Amino acid sequence: MVSWFGRSKIRVEIPRLKPRGASSATKVDFAEYTPELLPFLGQAAAMHLEVAENLARALAAAPSVEVKQQISYVAAQVLSTQHKLVAEIRGLHADPDELMRPFVDALVHYRTLATGTDWRELLLTCYLSAGMLGDFFEQLARGIGGDVGNRVASLLATDAGAEQLRELLQRSINAEPTLTSVLAMWGRRLVGDTLLVARSALADAGSPGSAAHHAAEANIEPVFTELIAAHTRRMDGLGLTA
Amino acid sequence: MVSWFGRSKIRVEIPRLKPRGASSATKVDFAEYTPELLPFLGQAAAMHLEVAENLARALAAAPSVEVKQQISYVAAQVLSTQHKLVAEIRGLHADPDELMRPFVDALVHYRTLATGTDWRELLLTCYLSAGMLGDFFEQLARGIGGDVGNRVASLLATDAGAEQLRELLQRSINAEPTLTSVLAMWGRRLVGDTLLVARSALADAGSPGSAAHHAAEANIEPVFTELIAAHTRRMDGLGLTA
Repeated sequence: MVSWFGRSKIRVEIPRLKPRGASSATKVDFAEYTPELLPFLGQAAAMHLEVAENLARALAAAPSVEVKQQISYVAAQVLSTQHKLVAEIRGLHADPDELMRPFVDALVHYRTLATGTDWRELLLTCYLSAGMLGDFFEQLARGIGGDVGNRVASLLATDAGAEQLRELLQRSINAEPTLTSVLAMWGRRLVGDTLLVARSALADAGSPGSAAHHAAEANIEPVFTELIAAHTRRMDGLGLTA
Repeated sequence: MVSWFGRSKIRVEIPRLKPRGASSATKVDFAEYTPELLPFLGQAAAMHLEVAENLARALAAAPSVEVKQQISYVAAQVLSTQHKLVAEIRGLHADPDELMRPFVDALVHYRTLATGTDWRELLLTCYLSAGMLGDFFEQLARGIGGDVGNRVASLLATDAGAEQLRELLQRSINAEPTLTSVLAMWGRRLVGDTLLVARSALADAGSPGSAAHHAAEANIEPVFTELIAAHTRRMDGLGLTA
């Protein structure tokens, strides 16, 4: 993946990932992996553009006007968040396209995953990846802090259509119960790639195999464990348990 | 096309189509073809959903992050207009999906036109069809009048990303001048189908071949002449003159 990060490191406490709204005193010290503000914003904007693109594909592929309409509401919310992220980048006098480009290129594998698939799979991709990465990026933004970091953390903490997406998926699954096994497999397939995207958001943690890298992995591991737990809760919520 | 209209006719003066912002004293008396409010709102919402869908396809097909980002701004504006139209329908305690469905089905030919085409063709489709139908529907809404009709007319009179779309098309054409002839042909191909959609928005004008139908056609003709003239100005503006 992309290694944009890790040039000037700022030490900040970054809280352990937790269910939204819950409070947790446990801290994971992966502060030194907190990315720099601008590349972070570029990646967050790129990720939201990617979700918007998958929603766009789902909107085009959906068979009925009801479903198209519902997807359109989710898309409007994701676009609104993405446009606010781009506005933050512009506010810092940086070029959003330039900052997003390396991440969009890195997301090419994600796009390959999504292409040519069923619209329900596309919606599940949006729901699960936006969920995992949204949680993760929110915590990173809080770790970066400052006016922009805190504003972006609040922005990423908003629902942005996730609940509508969940309801839409639930209705689709109820209408066609044979989807369950296909979507369950799809969801499992997504986890690894989504974790790679999350991993790439962190500041460089040494060359693979180095002592620094091992220490970093050990440090970061609990965060990923929580990401996976939240992912499993989302899958369970849809009756897509492995 | 769809014949939802023409049940209870309300006589209103509907002004001759004119360039936006211009004032014109000339009236075309096609008042009796003014559609009823609810089917009209359904068609306007369906048309905007169709434009949003074509923008979605263009966003997914566009090759660069810059272009995707620019399309996303246009899409957000079209979605915002569409969502306001749907809110007007809900405000009248009607079901937006039900009202949109027949028009979405009728737009299937439009969708066939758009499928599998180049993203520049998709953008041109959005620019030209939204332009022609936007002007036309704005005038119809003004003809319908009342609180809702006037509010919808003002909504449809807003730019909704047309200028951004024009700039994006202009840049694409400048970057690849060989596109000119392809897009010029594409634009000509669109006119007939777009006029059919506009025609279908009017209240029933008698069976084809009847005296009433002939009278109606003669009455409506100047409106279509103006729609075509505005279309030609849009094409000229992009250097796509026939």
